Amino acid sequence: MRVPMARREADHPRESCGIVGLCSEGRPAAPLAMMALWALQHRGQESAGIATSDGRVAYLHKGMGLVSQVFHEGILRSLRGHLAIGHTRYSTTGVAHLQNAQPFLSETLLGPLGIAHNGNLVNALPLRRRLLERGVGLSSGSDSELILQILASPPEAWGFAAAVEPEGDPWVSRLRCLLRLSPGAYALVVLTREAIYAVRDPYGFRPLCLGEWEGGYAVASESCALSMIGARYVREIAPGEIVRLDPRGVTSFAGGVPSSPAFCIFEYVYFMRPDSEREGGTVYSARLALGRQLAREAPAEADLVIGVPDSATAHAIGYSLESGIPFVEGLLKNRYIGRTFIQPDDQARRWGVRLKYSPLREVLQGRRVVLVDDSVVRGHTTRQLVQLLREGGALEVHLRIASPPIRHPCFMGIDMATHEELIAHRLDEEGIRRFAGADSLAFLSLEGMRRAIRETMPVPEGGYCTACFSGRYPAPLPEEIRREPSPKLAFEGIRSVR
Amino acid sequence: MRVPMARREADHPRESCGIVGLCSEGRPAAPLAMMALWALQHRGQESAGIATSDGRVAYLHKGMGLVSQVFHEGILRSLRGHLAIGHTRYSTTGVAHLQNAQPFLSETLLGPLGIAHNGNLVNALPLRRRLLERGVGLSSGSDSELILQILASPPEAWGFAAAVEPEGDPWVSRLRCLLRLSPGAYALVVLTREAIYAVRDPYGFRPLCLGEWEGGYAVASESCALSMIGARYVREIAPGEIVRLDPRGVTSFAGGVPSSPAFCIFEYVYFMRPDSEREGGTVYSARLALGRQLAREAPAEADLVIGVPDSATAHAIGYSLESGIPFVEGLLKNRYIGRTFIQPDDQARRWGVRLKYSPLREVLQGRRVVLVDDSVVRGHTTRQLVQLLREGGALEVHLRIASPPIRHPCFMGIDMATHEELIAHRLDEEGIRRFAGADSLAFLSLEGMRRAIRETMPVPEGGYCTACFSGRYPAPLPEEIRREPSPKLAFEGIRSVR
Amino acid sequence: MRVPMARREADHPRESCGIVGLCSEGRPAAPLAMMALWALQHRGQESAGIATSDGRVAYLHKGMGLVSQVFHEGILRSLRGHLAIGHTRYSTTGVAHLQNAQPFLSETLLGPLGIAHNGNLVNALPLRRRLLERGVGLSSGSDSELILQILASPPEAWGFAAAVEPEGDPWVSRLRCLLRLSPGAYALVVLTREAIYAVRDPYGFRPLCLGEWEGGYAVASESCALSMIGARYVREIAPGEIVRLDPRGVTSFAGGVPSSPAFCIFEYVYFMRPDSEREGGTVYSARLALGRQLAREAPAEADLVIGVPDSATAHAIGYSLESGIPFVEGLLKNRYIGRTFIQPDDQARRWGVRLKYSPLREVLQGRRVVLVDDSVVRGHTTRQLVQLLREGGALEVHLRIASPPIRHPCFMGIDMATHEELIAHRLDEEGIRRFAGADSLAFLSLEGMRRAIRETMPVPEGGYCTACFSGRYPAPLPEEIRREPSPKLAFEGIRSVR
Amino acid sequence: MRVPMARREADHPRESCGIVGLCSEGRPAAPLAMMALWALQHRGQESAGIATSDGRVAYLHKGMGLVSQVFHEGILRSLRGHLAIGHTRYSTTGVAHLQNAQPFLSETLLGPLGIAHNGNLVNALPLRRRLLERGVGLSSGSDSELILQILASPPEAWGFAAAVEPEGDPWVSRLRCLLRLSPGAYALVVLTREAIYAVRDPYGFRPLCLGEWEGGYAVASESCALSMIGARYVREIAPGEIVRLDPRGVTSFAGGVPSSPAFCIFEYVYFMRPDSEREGGTVYSARLALGRQLAREAPAEADLVIGVPDSATAHAIGYSLESGIPFVEGLLKNRYIGRTFIQPDDQARRWGVRLKYSPLREVLQGRRVVLVDDSVVRGHTTRQLVQLLREGGALEVHLRIASPPIRHPCFMGIDMATHEELIAHRLDEEGIRRFAGADSLAFLSLEGMRRAIRETMPVPEGGYCTACFSGRYPAPLPEEIRREPSPKLAFEGIRSVR
Repeated sequence: MRVPMARREADHPRESCGIVGLCSEGRPAAPLAMMALWALQHRGQESAGIATSDGRVAYLHKGMGLVSQVFHEGILRSLRGHLAIGHTRYSTTGVAHLQNAQPFLSETLLGPLGIAHNGNLVNALPLRRRLLERGVGLSSGSDSELILQILASPPEAWGFAAAVEPEGDPWVSRLRCLLRLSPGAYALVVLTREAIYAVRDPYGFRPLCLGEWEGGYAVASESCALSMIGARYVREIAPGEIVRLDPRGVTSFAGGVPSSPAFCIFEYVYFMRPDSEREGGTVYSARLALGRQLAREAPAEADLVIGVPDSATAHAIGYSLESGIPFVEGLLKNRYIGRTFIQPDDQARRWGVRLKYSPLREVLQGRRVVLVDDSVVRGHTTRQLVQLLREGGALEVHLRIASPPIRHPCFMGIDMATHEELIAHRLDEEGIRRFAGADSLAFLSLEGMRRAIRETMPVPEGGYCTACFSGRYPAPLPEEIRREPSPKLAFEGIRSVR
Repeated sequence: MRVPMARREADHPRESCGIVGLCSEGRPAAPLAMMALWALQHRGQESAGIATSDGRVAYLHKGMGLVSQVFHEGILRSLRGHLAIGHTRYSTTGVAHLQNAQPFLSETLLGPLGIAHNGNLVNALPLRRRLLERGVGLSSGSDSELILQILASPPEAWGFAAAVEPEGDPWVSRLRCLLRLSPGAYALVVLTREAIYAVRDPYGFRPLCLGEWEGGYAVASESCALSMIGARYVREIAPGEIVRLDPRGVTSFAGGVPSSPAFCIFEYVYFMRPDSEREGGTVYSARLALGRQLAREAPAEADLVIGVPDSATAHAIGYSLESGIPFVEGLLKNRYIGRTFIQPDDQARRWGVRLKYSPLREVLQGRRVVLVDDSVVRGHTTRQLVQLLREGGALEVHLRIASPPIRHPCFMGIDMATHEELIAHRLDEEGIRRFAGADSLAFLSLEGMRRAIRETMPVPEGGYCTACFSGRYPAPLPEEIRREPSPKLAFEGIRSVR
Repeated sequence: MRVPMARREADHPRESCGIVGLCSEGRPAAPLAMMALWALQHRGQESAGIATSDGRVAYLHKGMGLVSQVFHEGILRSLRGHLAIGHTRYSTTGVAHLQNAQPFLSETLLGPLGIAHNGNLVNALPLRRRLLERGVGLSSGSDSELILQILASPPEAWGFAAAVEPEGDPWVSRLRCLLRLSPGAYALVVLTREAIYAVRDPYGFRPLCLGEWEGGYAVASESCALSMIGARYVREIAPGEIVRLDPRGVTSFAGGVPSSPAFCIFEYVYFMRPDSEREGGTVYSARLALGRQLAREAPAEADLVIGVPDSATAHAIGYSLESGIPFVEGLLKNRYIGRTFIQPDDQARRWGVRLKYSPLREVLQGRRVVLVDDSVVRGHTTRQLVQLLREGGALEVHLRIASPPIRHPCFMGIDMATHEELIAHRLDEEGIRRFAGADSLAFLSLEGMRRAIRETMPVPEGGYCTACFSGRYPAPLPEEIRREPSPKLAFEGIRSVR
Repeated sequence: MRVPMARREADHPRESCGIVGLCSEGRPAAPLAMMALWALQHRGQESAGIATSDGRVAYLHKGMGLVSQVFHEGILRSLRGHLAIGHTRYSTTGVAHLQNAQPFLSETLLGPLGIAHNGNLVNALPLRRRLLERGVGLSSGSDSELILQILASPPEAWGFAAAVEPEGDPWVSRLRCLLRLSPGAYALVVLTREAIYAVRDPYGFRPLCLGEWEGGYAVASESCALSMIGARYVREIAPGEIVRLDPRGVTSFAGGVPSSPAFCIFEYVYFMRPDSEREGGTVYSARLALGRQLAREAPAEADLVIGVPDSATAHAIGYSLESGIPFVEGLLKNRYIGRTFIQPDDQARRWGVRLKYSPLREVLQGRRVVLVDDSVVRGHTTRQLVQLLREGGALEVHLRIASPPIRHPCFMGIDMATHEELIAHRLDEEGIRRFAGADSLAFLSLEGMRRAIRETMPVPEGGYCTACFSGRYPAPLPEEIRREPSPKLAFEGIRSVR
């Protein structure tokens, strides 16, 4: 029985995708895009795709699986041209379909148009309806198809006054139209015949940064993708900003909408790769700071600090550095589980997390342990890990979570859970502790989290989105979304069968 | 090296596709659709697909390869519902892409919409332009996507007066709009949430017939598909007619355009399966009659009549019956060549047709042979077959072709060849004879062809399209198509890479 | 549900395999071997393989599926050398396993040794036992592995006196040892580092012929494989003969066992390709003669002669030529069923043969029909075909079988059926007629069959094996085989799982 | 371009395989074997296989890839029975072939015989020759096939006196014969119709331990496989011991050869999973001790301790605990490289290790770093890692290796490198330091290594093999192996082509 990865990882919020766009002089863009996607593979392993343009024709290849499975030399050679966008996808719907793989590529009156995005449109449903009313058939549930069909028509078609086209570039006015039509939550790369465009929504929920090297420019979800292709980090794309990359260089355009920065703070807690940087700080240092702050807020009498590998290792080291309690490895992660696995009988099913983690008895035996995790969503894995540590001989298990309790679903592109599934929505801290079977439990405070990030991430853009902790959503949410936690499920009209 | 089948068969015109649509009561429609596609497999082996509706949701599965490779039980079970359309495709562009596989399925304001068609839109390019101008992005070069996006909007969007909707059915007025927008050459099945529609263009270039059984109704390109699912042949769908199948029965609507019957006569000569029937006659009898007429027009002094297997066997038997010269098998066809083959070196390449046909020396040795073929396109295979017969010991080879010389390309959905590739465009009959190396050569006359068909196929609809023989195209052709023999190649903006 | 082809074709005896061996000068042997296998594809479609030698190293590739699926250019290039043997396999056990695919290739004290054979060892079980007693582990149920391990040791190991090695060639004495150890029923090609060997058992049950061209020599199951590679037919390998092909030429060695020719007469009736020749006659002419003789023995009052396509077409034409009743196509064969198919529900299962054959109503309507088939095994297909003709409108169906009733299983390499499954073992002619639902039924007499073959196939080697008709087996059969009709099933110790 | 994993990991010695054998009462053995293989996946990712017996028939399935790719529920169900052996393979030859995948399964006179082993036969070549001389053909280069054919015949066939069979069990005397024929270096599991056998060579080079649970017994390369299936660790199989598992229990037999313990010390340094235990100690504690000892022997003035993830993390933590210098993560490992990757152009090739590791600039900037690795083989990765740390901002890099310099190839089943490839064979410590570009370099002393292991692993069996460090090989090596570093390459007679 194949279990989609998404299901197995259900105790972590799931990011939706990594994107890259680049303009390269003198070298084909596709191999660079592929290497950048490699570095972004942690943001999605379901499908991968690249679209390129050689200034005349646009080319597309996408497929299910890891970047290394989808691309090979022959395909890279066929993806001609110096312009490329790429995408790596994390299913947010539970079912994996090639039909939803990005980029999307279409012909338009202005020539080829390719789209890859990260996040989702909070007002996707009303926008779908407007497109359908305009007589456009939509063949997938992907927001990328929505964005593509929105950009395929001029602002007038959307009831806006005919736009002035900056530098005579009609794509900029169409992108401005998109920014007006949808408040978020997306980072977007666009391929046209002659340029790459990069856009962040007015809130800047999702990350997108700019890099350059001798011979080209790139935008990517994270700076680790820039490092991979030998590009220098330059800066973040600003919320509501439109940037064009073409052989003449990088041009910035105001998006024409008021920006209201609200960067997803969970990117620092969990999603981003630790070696990625933003505006002078690295994610790793933010995680160390989260761990240190947690140690200050919630000290513990213990012999060892252990992190849940790999995502909470940095937080745990931070806790250890601040508390003086030694950090050791107490849980091993099995690296070879692969994307699917078989549960041959009930006994195997009962073991659950044991297939993935093994306790180091030698280390744990007779010790009081601080177990640091980055976050808690449903709580099942946490409970199993605590039990695993006890079976490994731990005398006490003190659970420390390097973020506040998650009590509210995300509508800005992260697939977390419904209200009912969130353990912190149903239970208070003591209830969670009892469920997890820990000797003590503490979450990082919201204020403590803000402080740790502030110390390490001097991001000029300002505010953060902390809606999953606080319930205060920065963007207005359509009524139907508030009622229906998973807006994608509302798209039920057509289904691909495999 | 993989050689697409289309290339290998290049000495025959290539049909584009078989279609089926059905409404079944009390049984799932998908298994019936699959069996019907099986019977239509001769009309295309590149890809296959089925879309269904259960009255609420529409389902789609399509893939590359034979029907038996694309579908299996699990997939059929997932294709729920009592309504289905299906498609089997013959590449008309030389390159096989899943992206062009039919049916196409999209969501529209009126619910799900699925399209499968046979043929092509002669005015596809201007229609594409109109759609692009309306701000619709087009992601493939398929005419089915065009048709789908045309039907996704109401007639008003196309500049027609708001239509009266017969029986309040908006799909009928949209299909009438399509009939006005494009003169041909297509047979079309449409899936909506609650019904199947079948349409033939006003000329009726491509075949489409209606059948029924206890518990349902079906339309299909040929009656052999009806027989396969146990349905009785009822009648042809008329040129310009719209038919709706739903659980209440079959309803016919006038298409609202003047019809001008011009059925592709080549369907009788080559495309249709011999056991298919139309309006009281069978294709097999038509082919026997073509052979008989050929024998009357062009007798030969010979010992044996041989047909090129399998397509010209019936014509050859007709020639034999009329002439009294015994019919025997003189060429064997290798049944196991498969869809791809390898040409390991030049010697193999030189052998060409030998991989596919073997001469029966025993039969041919010292005999004067009439070799009957159904048609001649480029002439290369013909030349090799004549040489093969001579090597097999034939004393004389008298070539008899059961159709007139093909001198003009087809713009009505058949991928034949450009003017330059057609041997009868470049050479007269004597030139072809010399090229083929035959002792004598005769083509059936256009009048003789008409007579043979008239005798066996009392089709009430009347006229035939004989444009490839006569150059008289029944429908007005856009200028750009006349200049550019293969209109699909004009669509160069975006490309999928494999 | 995947139904192995063997099951579907169960109403015909099933041949086990085609083989080829060749020595080519100046050109790689593998591409030639592949083309020869192509021509032998009718003898087996389950798996294909080629082993080559470049005089130093031996190379092997084999896989499941058609020759065109198993081999491609890269593989052919890797199969280096001027010596090659090849094999195409028909499963005789019902289950397809790569493990049983041929050739087998092993290292021996004398260097690499490759084996491919056609047929089976009638005394396989006692030989297996002797090998196991000698301490050799056997990893498959294949007789090729048996032969290989027998040839891996010198005659002394088998209790024979140390052999004189003709021309100092130890392989010849080992092959002589094999001929003494097993009476049949096999045709065999052997690859060693420096030569190809070809062997037929002393009865010569299975065919094997020799060809040559400028630059090489080949042996193959049928002459059609020689034609495919441009080689001239030279002669049959004699029963009990050993032939060596190497760059110095062709050398014949006496096998050292008394020969007792008993060529499988069914090769002419059904297995061989019609364009293959043997000793001056072609198989096609033999089949015409069988049909003529049948017409003489069992005339019918009828309007048409129809053959079951494709295997009985020649017999039917012979019947027609002799009787004067016109031959027409009355049944069409669906060419695109593929190797597997799905039976979506019971209705489909009931249709059975209808998926494969369609009646031509136009031809059959109101006619009295002679239906000629080459043989009858279980009778189910026959019954369904008769019914199909009646539904197609035939007034009378006169069944004529161009071979005698099959009443006995074959132990010489053909997978026919058990006694119980053979309809002619259970029922007399009238019983079969009633079961088939025919108006009349006649089989060709054994004497008539012999006469027709004698007229067309002046094979000097003499006798034929007609055991399946007469029950007189030419070779002594081990007791256990007589008791157990399907000897392969006795090998039950180990199984590969897929 | 596909690069086999082995090549990429070339800077680590490569283990050859993990094995498991088990007897389960009341539950099928195959699912348990699969889960055990999962836990042993770190010992080999090239292929996986399981053979089972139900007391009557033996079943086999093996395939290329990870355990999770090779097995699924249907296959597990078909692998019937309560006895199973399993294998997971690391290519030691650079080329991956299904033909070399284990287990091997054959029929013998005593019934089915299955073999899976870990390590290699040091005297494989003379044993091959003896088998070939006995007239046995060998179809692969696998030592498992050798072992199987050796066990297929009784001791007499190998020139030993007819053996007394303990408890009438002929397999025990055959395994004793194997122990006499080959001194090492192997751990072996054997499947017969009625029992599982486990054997370690007289030196005990490779690990093999015994476990039990309510309802069964198991042997496995490492105890982590026992934990995975819920079994308790009981003890190591002793060097030269034979153990039988069957439904009656566990029986131990003396192997009949003098044992001379020489366990591969590198198992502790690198191969074994950290959570595996042996005789009361865990591998993790041994690695901490190696790191501590390294800190005592080779202190450094530095700000941070960094380990090469994941294999040297424990050693680095040990170094940190002893030295008091904080351990942090300074290098990130990309988890998603997959089994193959593409190097699109020279630039990518130059980047090499950068695809796999990223430096954490934030952590490294301006710091003096101790970089701990477990071992150095060729030195290329080491050099690149040092450079990566410098680019990440490290002021000084002090390289500390938790094992002595590897100066000699291994002939006991580990694929390390030839003399010439080993950097420590060519260069002294200062030379290696200069090559690596480190500010200082120290290796752990041989005596320090022994001491650290002694403290944590009170293995009663005694001695260790340290031949790769010291050049003192415990077992006599055939002359041809000493000359030819990679003995497998001597088997050149036959090759499978893919």
